[in-house]
Amino acid sequence: MTREGQQSQLPGDSRFFTRSGPFSLARLLEVTGAEALGPATAETLFEGVAPLHAAGPQHVSFCDNRRYLPLLETTGAGLVVLGPAFVDKVPKGCTALISREPYLLWARVARLFHPAPPVQAKCHPTAVIGQDVKIGKQVEIGPFAVIGDGVSLGDGCVIGAHASVGDHVVIGAGCRIGAHVSLSHALLGERVVLYPGARIGQDGFGFAVGPEGFETVPQLGRVVLGDGVEVGANSTIDRGSMRDTVIGAGTRIDNLVQIGHNAQLGRCCIVVSQAGVSGSTVIEDFVTIAAQAGLIGHIHIGRKARIGAQCGVMNDVDAGADVIGSPAMPFREFFRNVATLRKLSRK
Amino acid sequence: MTREGQQSQLPGDSRFFTRSGPFSLARLLEVTGAEALGPATAETLFEGVAPLHAAGPQHVSFCDNRRYLPLLETTGAGLVVLGPAFVDKVPKGCTALISREPYLLWARVARLFHPAPPVQAKCHPTAVIGQDVKIGKQVEIGPFAVIGDGVSLGDGCVIGAHASVGDHVVIGAGCRIGAHVSLSHALLGERVVLYPGARIGQDGFGFAVGPEGFETVPQLGRVVLGDGVEVGANSTIDRGSMRDTVIGAGTRIDNLVQIGHNAQLGRCCIVVSQAGVSGSTVIEDFVTIAAQAGLIGHIHIGRKARIGAQCGVMNDVDAGADVIGSPAMPFREFFRNVATLRKLSRK
Amino acid sequence: MTREGQQSQLPGDSRFFTRSGPFSLARLLEVTGAEALGPATAETLFEGVAPLHAAGPQHVSFCDNRRYLPLLETTGAGLVVLGPAFVDKVPKGCTALISREPYLLWARVARLFHPAPPVQAKCHPTAVIGQDVKIGKQVEIGPFAVIGDGVSLGDGCVIGAHASVGDHVVIGAGCRIGAHVSLSHALLGERVVLYPGARIGQDGFGFAVGPEGFETVPQLGRVVLGDGVEVGANSTIDRGSMRDTVIGAGTRIDNLVQIGHNAQLGRCCIVVSQAGVSGSTVIEDFVTIAAQAGLIGHIHIGRKARIGAQCGVMNDVDAGADVIGSPAMPFREFFRNVATLRKLSRK
Repeated sequence: MTREGQQSQLPGDSRFFTRSGPFSLARLLEVTGAEALGPATAETLFEGVAPLHAAGPQHVSFCDNRRYLPLLETTGAGLVVLGPAFVDKVPKGCTALISREPYLLWARVARLFHPAPPVQAKCHPTAVIGQDVKIGKQVEIGPFAVIGDGVSLGDGCVIGAHASVGDHVVIGAGCRIGAHVSLSHALLGERVVLYPGARIGQDGFGFAVGPEGFETVPQLGRVVLGDGVEVGANSTIDRGSMRDTVIGAGTRIDNLVQIGHNAQLGRCCIVVSQAGVSGSTVIEDFVTIAAQAGLIGHIHIGRKARIGAQCGVMNDVDAGADVIGSPAMPFREFFRNVATLRKLSRK
Repeated sequence: MTREGQQSQLPGDSRFFTRSGPFSLARLLEVTGAEALGPATAETLFEGVAPLHAAGPQHVSFCDNRRYLPLLETTGAGLVVLGPAFVDKVPKGCTALISREPYLLWARVARLFHPAPPVQAKCHPTAVIGQDVKIGKQVEIGPFAVIGDGVSLGDGCVIGAHASVGDHVVIGAGCRIGAHVSLSHALLGERVVLYPGARIGQDGFGFAVGPEGFETVPQLGRVVLGDGVEVGANSTIDRGSMRDTVIGAGTRIDNLVQIGHNAQLGRCCIVVSQAGVSGSTVIEDFVTIAAQAGLIGHIHIGRKARIGAQCGVMNDVDAGADVIGSPAMPFREFFRNVATLRKLSRK
Repeated sequence: MTREGQQSQLPGDSRFFTRSGPFSLARLLEVTGAEALGPATAETLFEGVAPLHAAGPQHVSFCDNRRYLPLLETTGAGLVVLGPAFVDKVPKGCTALISREPYLLWARVARLFHPAPPVQAKCHPTAVIGQDVKIGKQVEIGPFAVIGDGVSLGDGCVIGAHASVGDHVVIGAGCRIGAHVSLSHALLGERVVLYPGARIGQDGFGFAVGPEGFETVPQLGRVVLGDGVEVGANSTIDRGSMRDTVIGAGTRIDNLVQIGHNAQLGRCCIVVSQAGVSGSTVIEDFVTIAAQAGLIGHIHIGRKARIGAQCGVMNDVDAGADVIGSPAMPFREFFRNVATLRKLSRK
């Protein structure tokens, strides 16, 4: 099995993914509400999805990044999902599926061809289930999962292999708890997804200096995850000390992210991998925190602010602001500084 | 269950935390050795702890950050732990519990109301215990824990669910090994705490360039953790190659921290989340390394040095020095540079 | 058990490591192909390895870092592996084992004295093995491992305690899957090593903005790890969305590293701890990415480029280039900037 041989394969390897279809253009238009432009007819069938460079006439592909226009111009795909601006780059013989939200459209087309496998109502015989556990309908519990006393699992939850759910944790309907997750002192809304190895609810980093070393300050809050929150692999969210650590509905957290105790994130924030939010910091709705950025504790980030990659935020950030650099400053100032310093160094 | 409803609750949710009390002011003074100033009498009873904004007359609260003085001035708390400087901000009807070490006092008050649950002497029937394991008194071993051959567990240890303890590891009395920890080639003192997902004792990142690629250099040292060391969730400490990786007594390591092979940390150091210490670096006692800082290998950090957040340390740091920036420089120089560049850019 | 007492011990603690020997100088010369200079004869026996400061006449030691020359000059070691440049620093009574690749030589000497323990063909009775699993010869499967349906395990594989291997994953001969690893949607070559807690194959961070929040974009690719790839503890490699995430043969990834979906790493790259590679970035062969560096998505890094610690890479990097800083710039430019700014600030 060579690297090249593996690479040439199309996405959706049937060993790992479910498949559906084929689907007619008519069906794709119905599902997506998009507009088609090109030679395909309502009855033309498509068998699956493929990237621009590998797609054939039976495939649906996708382009929304100017960087990949050369691939669009030469693609063999039968159908391509894209925005209006790229329509004139579609080669002859290929039909454009046009949307002002092409990535969203693409998500739905790809999901149509590769639906998520249904949840199987079963509890692996090796799982350890505590006392007074409430288990909803159609719940799947994997091998070696540990469910503590008094836990509540909503309908349609999936608990992965080796997951550890502490006593009295509440998990809403439709949640997916990945393999090896540890979860304690927490209340989860609906459709929360925790990726493998996420650590939710452990003690925050709180201690006082005592006469014989550090003394731990009891961490008496919880972690509250709103509906639809996702937390990436090996990320860590500490529970609060005196209030809860709260992640608002719809917020997506990538891998290896740290969220400190008492932090409050609003709705639909994005926190990219390896970023860190220190304790007691408050982040309003729709904030984006790029990769490897760090926020100190006890600050306030306004709604729709954008924190750049590797940014070091030591002060409050206004709503709608774009900041980058360490210490953080407006994007324009940062890049002006870079240019100034380069110029001065060359003298 | 709404987000707001969850938020309004007080800390110490009885589903997750033990409770004790009520306690009289006399008892609190006895436990803490502090001084009280205000209307409460020795017999006044307090039921629990609460943050300033949510506390009522039956609650003890806390303030040691100037940022929260407005909350102090309007709190409904019956008793507030604070330092002498804030006493004049305490509202009428509220009693001040005054200490020069208010955070330490607070740790003890909170622990009084919410004592740690006692260790339960039991070994879950699913745990796999190797041969010739020495198990002390009052040891608790969780479901699916794996204890290798020849392991020694001191009195009062707690081994979490799914923890994996390699052959011949020595764990002192009173240690708590969190869920999903992996631990090998290691000697632990007493009262060591490893949070969920910590990885202790795996091979360091050592390899030589051979004719057909990299060849691994055997990593023949151990990890030695002193008394009272704590290691955060998903942090990683590699074992040494030719000597041990050593973490001195009392040192606290936050989440997602990397400690390379052969590193030597002194006593009572603080390493905040996502910081990294490269191989063979030596760090003296009482050093603080803030979040996301990185230290290259083979350098020496003097006693009580403070490394700022996101600092990139490429050279030795003197005892007592404060450094920040990448590359690291004294705090004053760093902020002077920031100001200089801003001024030059605006010209 | 004092810290000092533990520290004084030699590497290769027999509780944790296998031992072999003693070996004669003749044997060491035969194994290494190196040249000896000094008083030892072909028959002189050596018992083990030790660091310069602790070694006695029965030990082999090692020096290839100028920083440690004072230790070399005073070592009590009987034999020291080193490069030609250090030969004149070897003390009387000590024999030099000289090589132009001393670290590689050292790897082989240390491995001779401390060979890797042989794989034991056994499957722990607690492991859960799926249907239609192909298990090669001499495979070791640890307690509570979960092997999904249709998995293929090559000869000589070791699957650690609590490892979770998803359905249809292919693992080549001689792989070592550490404790608590989760692995899905992946194809592994031969001799791949995954350290404890590595997360391989979970969904990438892909979602579109929908009318009611973010909608997940199906992640339909795989993770393909070439022969000899190593992935550090708690590192995360997301599977591709429309193509595979690929790590080329021989590449070594340290702890707590993030590799985003669709990333392509070439052969024999080095990615040091806490670095991050964003989605769809392509990295050619022999690239080094130092600790805590971050690369944005969709860029191209040329062959043998070197990315410095904490570097923030926002653009393509040419083959052979050395870059550092955030944003990334050539090493020389970065350090010239640092000097310029220091000078200007002092005015």
